[in-house]
Amino acid sequence: MLIVKVGGGATINLDGIVEDLAQLDQPFVVVHGANALRDEIASQLNKPRQTITSVKGIDSVFSDEDAIDVILMSYAGLRNKRLVEALQIRRINAVGLSGLDGRLVQGKRNSGIRVKQGSKTLLKRDFSGKPQSVNQTLLTLLLDNGFVPVLTIPIVDENGFAINSENDDIVNELQSALNASLIVQLIEAPGFLDDASDEASMVAKLTQAELISREQQVSGRMKRKMMALTRLFERGAARVIISDGRTDHPLRDALEGAGTHIG
Amino acid sequence: MLIVKVGGGATINLDGIVEDLAQLDQPFVVVHGANALRDEIASQLNKPRQTITSVKGIDSVFSDEDAIDVILMSYAGLRNKRLVEALQIRRINAVGLSGLDGRLVQGKRNSGIRVKQGSKTLLKRDFSGKPQSVNQTLLTLLLDNGFVPVLTIPIVDENGFAINSENDDIVNELQSALNASLIVQLIEAPGFLDDASDEASMVAKLTQAELISREQQVSGRMKRKMMALTRLFERGAARVIISDGRTDHPLRDALEGAGTHIG
Repeated sequence: MLIVKVGGGATINLDGIVEDLAQLDQPFVVVHGANALRDEIASQLNKPRQTITSVKGIDSVFSDEDAIDVILMSYAGLRNKRLVEALQIRRINAVGLSGLDGRLVQGKRNSGIRVKQGSKTLLKRDFSGKPQSVNQTLLTLLLDNGFVPVLTIPIVDENGFAINSENDDIVNELQSALNASLIVQLIEAPGFLDDASDEASMVAKLTQAELISREQQVSGRMKRKMMALTRLFERGAARVIISDGRTDHPLRDALEGAGTHIG
Repeated sequence: MLIVKVGGGATINLDGIVEDLAQLDQPFVVVHGANALRDEIASQLNKPRQTITSVKGIDSVFSDEDAIDVILMSYAGLRNKRLVEALQIRRINAVGLSGLDGRLVQGKRNSGIRVKQGSKTLLKRDFSGKPQSVNQTLLTLLLDNGFVPVLTIPIVDENGFAINSENDDIVNELQSALNASLIVQLIEAPGFLDDASDEASMVAKLTQAELISREQQVSGRMKRKMMALTRLFERGAARVIISDGRTDHPLRDALEGAGTHIG
């Protein structure tokens, strides 16, 4: 079993990845993003991403109802189904699902963010949260019958609502359920970079122990990624490859040694 | 087994329908449209519906790649997943799928439309076609395990491509596979109207034999609906109700006698 996480950046080579997926000789699950597409559609629909500043001064994305609508159009709609189509054209029987479908990825909605409004402190709650589990029955049902699940956000909260979530956290829950032998993450960089501004500084190998020290070294999105990777190994992952999603054959390259190999 | 077809008009009461679905005490499948939503998103994205005039002078919708993109956003994305969410909130374990997913609704792409271009006649081919069969394995797998399929366009053609199709034709294929005891179609009218311009002219009962004579009486979309209904009975349907999707409880009303009952 292989989990392939496909980044949502504008320069990810989806066709190349789909071609590579069609050559795999083992069962796999795809988890994909669509952030560049989401931003494009959001801007066209004049529903830009909202951010919110907490009383502690931390900025975060605020996923209101409009934001979830745009996620449904871009992630669960356009990107998910075009990926399913591309796989179907290559005779891979893909089934595209969001975490809502059959409660496939169940999460807990965030309790809210404390914000200042004049002299008052308010709790503002958006539609976002963290995955807690996956519906293993549905996943197994599909895999055992030869279907390839192609998964994306939103996920479902404890009350049935659609919530935004991090794909890295979804991959973690999938790993707990599937115990995949390998997880490949295809991103808009050659792999893990020692110096974020220098693509030539890619680190070819990392041990699990090194992940924690590296975590201190980086910031922002890459720090969250390192933390997620640490948890992925806690969930029993044996091997993770972070590799370039922009090449002609991103997945093949990764399997043949490109990118950062962790394990 | 019940098949519920939910129209895609702007005034259809989706919340009321979902409330009624949650009260059903038998398995069911939902097939839904989203035409008003599609038109709204298409206009916002500046991707208006294309029409084409054949050499015979017949206008039809031309579903180019942009049109399929908009269908994926509106039908398979926003409308499908918000319906799934509304069902999940009411503890119905819905799974939203397009015909692409697991090749659930397989069709044949139209061969093209002959158009005049200057002195030449060209064959212009779009992404549209007719459903031929459904993937009964996947449908049965979901139903037998307590999931409620919520289906919409696009469907998949013989080569794996996403194609536009008529929901009425999809319902026909579903009926062949499911042998439902009842099909309810919720539309933006009280039922079948004797005079299309007069909602008070609703016909409360129609026999299967009357369908064919009625077919001669009507035109346009309603004529196609009558023809589809005739085929639905050929597929073994026992009872069909066409009823008002705009009331507070559209499905409950239909089951309690509202609308046009055919059988």
